[in-house]
Formats: sequence, C-alpha cells, structure tokens
Amino acid sequence: MFEKILENMTLKRPLVHNITNYVTVNDCANIVLACGGSPIMADEQAEVEDIQTICSALVLNIGTLSKNTINAMITAGKKANLLNHPVILDPVGVGASKLRTETVFKLLEEVKFTVIRGNISEIKCVYQGTSTVKGVDADENDTVNDSDIEKTIKLAKDLSKRTGAIIVITGAIDIVADDTKVYIIRNGSPMMSKITGTGCMLTCVIGSFCGANNENYLDGTAAAVCAMGLCGEIAYSKTREIDGGTASFRMFLIDAMSKMTPSVLSGGVKIEDR
Amino acid sequence: MFEKILENMTLKRPLVHNITNYVTVNDCANIVLACGGSPIMADEQAEVEDIQTICSALVLNIGTLSKNTINAMITAGKKANLLNHPVILDPVGVGASKLRTETVFKLLEEVKFTVIRGNISEIKCVYQGTSTVKGVDADENDTVNDSDIEKTIKLAKDLSKRTGAIIVITGAIDIVADDTKVYIIRNGSPMMSKITGTGCMLTCVIGSFCGANNENYLDGTAAAVCAMGLCGEIAYSKTREIDGGTASFRMFLIDAMSKMTPSVLSGGVKIEDR
Amino acid sequence: MFEKILENMTLKRPLVHNITNYVTVNDCANIVLACGGSPIMADEQAEVEDIQTICSALVLNIGTLSKNTINAMITAGKKANLLNHPVILDPVGVGASKLRTETVFKLLEEVKFTVIRGNISEIKCVYQGTSTVKGVDADENDTVNDSDIEKTIKLAKDLSKRTGAIIVITGAIDIVADDTKVYIIRNGSPMMSKITGTGCMLTCVIGSFCGANNENYLDGTAAAVCAMGLCGEIAYSKTREIDGGTASFRMFLIDAMSKMTPSVLSGGVKIEDR
Repeated sequence: MFEKILENMTLKRPLVHNITNYVTVNDCANIVLACGGSPIMADEQAEVEDIQTICSALVLNIGTLSKNTINAMITAGKKANLLNHPVILDPVGVGASKLRTETVFKLLEEVKFTVIRGNISEIKCVYQGTSTVKGVDADENDTVNDSDIEKTIKLAKDLSKRTGAIIVITGAIDIVADDTKVYIIRNGSPMMSKITGTGCMLTCVIGSFCGANNENYLDGTAAAVCAMGLCGEIAYSKTREIDGGTASFRMFLIDAMSKMTPSVLSGGVKIEDR
Repeated sequence: MFEKILENMTLKRPLVHNITNYVTVNDCANIVLACGGSPIMADEQAEVEDIQTICSALVLNIGTLSKNTINAMITAGKKANLLNHPVILDPVGVGASKLRTETVFKLLEEVKFTVIRGNISEIKCVYQGTSTVKGVDADENDTVNDSDIEKTIKLAKDLSKRTGAIIVITGAIDIVADDTKVYIIRNGSPMMSKITGTGCMLTCVIGSFCGANNENYLDGTAAAVCAMGLCGEIAYSKTREIDGGTASFRMFLIDAMSKMTPSVLSGGVKIEDR
Repeated sequence: MFEKILENMTLKRPLVHNITNYVTVNDCANIVLACGGSPIMADEQAEVEDIQTICSALVLNIGTLSKNTINAMITAGKKANLLNHPVILDPVGVGASKLRTETVFKLLEEVKFTVIRGNISEIKCVYQGTSTVKGVDADENDTVNDSDIEKTIKLAKDLSKRTGAIIVITGAIDIVADDTKVYIIRNGSPMMSKITGTGCMLTCVIGSFCGANNENYLDGTAAAVCAMGLCGEIAYSKTREIDGGTASFRMFLIDAMSKMTPSVLSGGVKIEDR
C-alpha cells in the first residue's frame, strides 16, 4: 500500500511553499528534503504569490503567528486555490489565544483547505470555536483511544463535511478522514511528543505528498501519516539501541524519513479503513 | 540535593512562555521539553497576554531583538508580574548596541524580574550601564576565577539588591545569588561555549524549574544551573567516546537533560553555598 | 595550502555579523563557531551599525526576505564598506520572486560586496537579471560539469569584473573566481544537497575566513569552499559507517568543521587554479 505515493515523490520532487513558525522551521525544511520534496520558506506579502506560482503545494502553520504574516497567508492561500494547489493548515495552539482562534476562522473563511492537521484539542477548537487547549500540546483530558474513537471519527467527518478539507487528528491513534472515508492509523511512538516539531513536520510531509499526488489527496495524506509514524517507531528503536535521549530521537526520525522506501513503508503501515 | 525540584517538574509539567531569538529557539523548545516542561513561543503583542495567562513562567531573551517584540516583552512581563509568574531575563549581547542596552534598562524599569542570567560581561553591563561586550560571548578580559570570585559575588549581590532579581553569572564558575545567599557551582564543560545556545537553553531551564517551584526560586535556579552544567559534562564525555565534534556535543547535551533524574543530579552537583 | 588561513582563524577569532534567514540560522551560527569564529545575528535597523562596528565581517542572506530587513541589510552593508570589512552576499532563491531579484539588484547598487556565493541558477540570475530558478535549489538544466566549465568560468569572471566581487558558484564542481584568477574545486558530496543550509553555512564560513584574512580574500574564500567540501566528504563517510540518513549527515558535517585542522585541510583539498 502507498508505494505509488512514494514513487511519485521521486518522480516529481515537489517544491513546497511553507509559511510557518520560526521554532521548527529548520526541521520542517529538512523533513521535506528527506521525504523527497524541495522546501521554500517565504512569508513576505510582496513575494508569496510569485513563490506559490512556482510551487506544487502550500503549508500554513500558525505556530508563531505574527500580524505581518496573516495577510501573507491569506494571499498565498488564495493564489494556491486559484492554481489548484493543495493547501494544508496546521492550526498550532489554536484556542490558546484569541488571535490564534480568530486567525484560524479567518483563514477558513478566505482559503479553501485540502487538509487540516492538528492534535485532538486543536481540531476540537476548530470544530467548536472554543477550546481547552493547553499551549501547543493536546490537553490531557483530550485523548483519542479505542473507547471514544467513534465519537472522534464523527467529529472528523462532520468537520470535513463543513470545511471540505481532509481532517487529520494525530495522537496515540491517528485519524485521517474526509466526509465519506476514514483511515485509522496506529503507527508512531510516544517519544514523538517529547521533541518539538513532530506535528509541524508531519504537516509538511502531508504537503509534500499531496504536492506529488494530486489525483488522490486522501491516500497521500494517509501515507504521510503512516510514514511519519513509522519513522517514529524506527527512531525510537535506534534511540534505545544507543541509550540516547530526545535529541538523538529527533536525528533518527529525520534519518528514517530520508531512508524511507516504498517497501519499508508498505511493510510497516498499521492502518485500517472504514 | 534538588531532588524535590526535579520531582516537581514531573508533577507539574509547567507551560513556559518564551519571547526569544530565532537563532536558538528550536534548542530552547527542545530543552524545555527535555527537562519536563512544555514550551510555547509567542511574541505577537496581540496575543502575549492570553498566552501568559495559561502559562507558569515567562522567559525574555533579547538575542535577536526587533522593535516589534520589545513592546510584546513589556506587555507579557507586566502580565506575568500581575499573575505572580516568575519572569526570567536573558540580556544576550547587552552592551553590543545602544538598542540592546536601552532595551534592557527599559525592561528593568517596566518589569519585575525573578532571575537575570548572563555571562560576566553582560551582567557587568547591566550593573554598570556600560560594557566591554564583544558580541554575544564574554569578553576575554572578563573571566570569573577563584582569585576574583569575591568581587564577582559582591557584584551579583549588589545587583540582586538593586533589582530584586536572583542574579546568575555563568562561565567557568557559575554564581547564583540573591542579596543574602550565594551558590557557587563548578559543573560544566568548556565545550559548552563552542555551540550556540547553551546560555539561552539554560535560561529556559531556569524558567521551567522556577515555573514548577514557586516556593523556592533560588533553589530552582541553582538546580537548573547544576543540571545544565552536569549535562555539559555528560555530553562532553559522550562526545569524546565517539570522537565527535560540536554538533554531536549539542545532541548529547539535550539527550542528557532528557535523561536527567533526581538521583543523577544529586550525585553530580558540584555546589557550595555561602 | 591554506594552513595560514586556518591559523588566522585561531589567532583572530573573528566576530561575524549575519543578517540571514530564520530557516538555517542555527546551523549558520554553529558552523561559524565550529570554524573558529564567533557569530552574532542582528537584523534590526536600529542596531546594525553598532553591531557591524564591533565585527570583522558581514554576511547578507536573503533566504527569508522581509521588507523590514532590506533596509537593515543596506545600512549594515554601507557601514561595513566604510569600515573596510568584507561583505558576503548569498542571493538565496534570487529569480524565484520579483522581490528577491529586485532586492539583489538594489543591494548590488548600494553595497560593495567582497564575495557573492550562489548555485549556478542564482549566479546566472544575478548575471542576466532573469532566471530559471526553481525555488532555492539549482535548476536541473543548470549544472556545472567538465564539458561546459569554460563557459561557467567566463560567466564568473565577467560578473566579478562587473561587480568587483569574488564570485563563488557551488555545485558538483565549485568555482571561485575574480576577474584574473580562478580556482576549480572538486571537494564535496552529493549528500550536501539533501539537507537545508549547506549553501548558507558555506557563505558564513567564507565570511568568517575573510574576516580573519583581510590580506587575501580570494584565498580565504577558496579555503572556505575547500574546507566545507572536505567536511561534506568526511560527513558522508561517517554517515555511511553508521548507516545514517540526512540528519546524521548534518551533524557529522558540523562536527567535521569543528575538528578541521590546517593539516587535514591541506591533505584533503582538491583544487586547481588557472
């Protein structure tokens, strides 16, 4: 499964335009390269249309939101919509401030998103307009586990219907849903939450895979989620081998993505669809 | 010693708000996670009050100062003061430009700091209002060694009396002082000055430890300084084992923090108090 | 060859002022430290003159251009010119947007550069005023190989004559040229293009070496290109040893620079001059 998605990365080497935060931007650029894409970061209003024109995808991440970049995000998003490029939203910490919440709703109003990815607290906030977000991590009361998974799937499908976007909820279990189909993915490692940027990086991999797979965004997105989770498993195992810590894990995670092949991915995915 | 400080990190997992530079911000976020906290970076004036409200501590770092963020720093600082959250200042490169020096004095006027951490050149500049700062590193004529340590301790105590803040001077020997008590800490490795960000990271660990230990900021701060120094020692030893360089050292440093335990810290601190 | 260049790094430990992008800035700071310099990043218009005054070199990199920093670049550049400090330009992605192209031409008009470093697509764009730039990487149709090397050398020499700057074109083969002399350098590894920032880092190493070798910028620049390429070779070999990926490579690259010695450099350079 997903071999074709990865092969297209090698064939097309999509150029991915990111308007993102300055915390994890280096990891984001490196993971785009590692998964076979080519990253460009550009957030100046005056150039985002030009940049989007030469790209195959757009990733918007509000992790360190500034008033200057909100307009750039909207301008780039509209241009991407016009060009039929996939646009991915990572609503980092939505609900943690009025500015973030309002910005996300403004973006949803002005730009048509292909995929929205967040943790369960962030996606709930996008769904409800309010939240119990504790910073940039999921609230401890907001977890996804097998007992409440049906409720979470319904939330994802409903939000997909309302926004037209594929909804990705990441956590111990990952959900990828549009309004008709759902993938439930059990790849990953708890250590992924001990470093900054695994969410941001995944969003960039989704952008890259969608940029090279325009005919099937749902599978492109699911493949990205599986690949990232599998990289987490490989990195966890390598980190244990050398008795390493979180910084080793981060290195092994990007290493694993740069060495991912169609057959490794195929052999490692833990996915079910409904 | 300091077991309780570390245990509180596990219990409380403090959310730490950082307004910091874009050079070392990723390392800062990763070290906050490694030491048991949760980082959020937010420097937009319009959201810093909201963000500070959900946090337990504030770290202000002027490493890449921009006019836009100075007001955000003051607004966030005032909010943190109102909420009785600890506020930590890292006056990176103060004295290297008029803007940095004036900003530090403006911050000291508007915000009450819990801790101020810098190298000896930076702290001298805060003390005297002038300096011989050579960029962001301590001037070679400004060293702390056993022969002049009494003079440095006096400077730290005097500055603590004047500002009400705990003063941390880091270098070959580290000093943590309020106006009545002083810790002299001899943990660390010279290799810490061969990578960017060890100072910034320490400031974030101080913010994290203070955020989880409101009843004893002096011990929280001293524990952070010892922990970071001990991580430097562990990282240096690991780097030598693999014949690595400065980038390996950086990885091992964050690794060591992510594996720090109360007993490792207890067994490794080299501290004396007066 | 080049022993003296490296020895001067140890003797002078130049302070290098960078106005650069937020994607690779941490790697840039760490490579400046690794090669024996001391980095300071400062892009606020209000302080760049003060900062440049205490520095020995200036590096301008347009990787994430913002309108705010363009004036800071010009101000810092003029100050560096006044002080006779070397100024290095990295026209990242020039040609990818009107803003980048116009900014580069404005910078060339206002500031006298000592060195301009880019990939072949970027340097062609600076030469012609137009381009086929695909994002921040060289276009696949723009390669430098032995069959067309004479054409590329002529382009570099012509551009050097016009701008007064040493021209560096990096790729599979690297060219360092002024209007009379050319170095052709064959150090490096294809893996250098699989991580972000090798170009930016090289530009910073050039800035550092020039900052410590004012009497011979051409040799300082060539030494930096050789050193970086040699680090790529060493890092590639280490990465293969541990069966690592791109993130391991990045670590080993900076490691190698931090362990570079005059004799290692001497023994490893693959350079010819014409």
